Amino acid sequence: MKPYYAVIFTSLLSENSKGYNEMAANMENLAKQQPGFLGIDTVRDNIGITISYWENLDDIKNWKANLDHLAAQKLGKEQWYQWYKVRVCKVEREYEFNNK
Amino acid sequence: MKPYYAVIFTSLLSENSKGYNEMAANMENLAKQQPGFLGIDTVRDNIGITISYWENLDDIKNWKANLDHLAAQKLGKEQWYQWYKVRVCKVEREYEFNNK
Repeated sequence: MKPYYAVIFTSLLSENSKGYNEMAANMENLAKQQPGFLGIDTVRDNIGITISYWENLDDIKNWKANLDHLAAQKLGKEQWYQWYKVRVCKVEREYEFNNK
Repeated sequence: MKPYYAVIFTSLLSENSKGYNEMAANMENLAKQQPGFLGIDTVRDNIGITISYWENLDDIKNWKANLDHLAAQKLGKEQWYQWYKVRVCKVEREYEFNNK
């Protein structure tokens, strides 16, 4: 396989999560329209994990600097997130199991 | 930061998930005792995402080959998982936000 990149975003929401779900859905839709976007997996329970997959590091930089995304990041820090961590990773190997 | 590794495990459970939660908790406890283990994040909702963090690729190989873990992997394929995907990644960069 050709290496690609994953951005692992783990987060804890604050108590004030008003508007969060709508913004998260908007950002997911916007991410899907960016160059180099390959896919996204997102789950929230006790913590949230969102992993987006990208062709290369420049695609990730561009998405991080997208104006609408910057506005969302600002609101995220001010209101929604108690904590988050971002890890930028190179996917070196993968395999899959499918029980048809 | 010193690079380290992440194993991203995304999965869909089958309808027969009897015994799954207990085994998953056992495997998490066992993983924590392995050399090179750095941490684990796990969430399940529509899909499950478990990310374990390791010092290097050998640690990941050793954990994959652990006998109890192999037995769990076999049961997973036979009973619990409809689908899964494993990605082995090198964490190249990270940053964190903490709203104290």
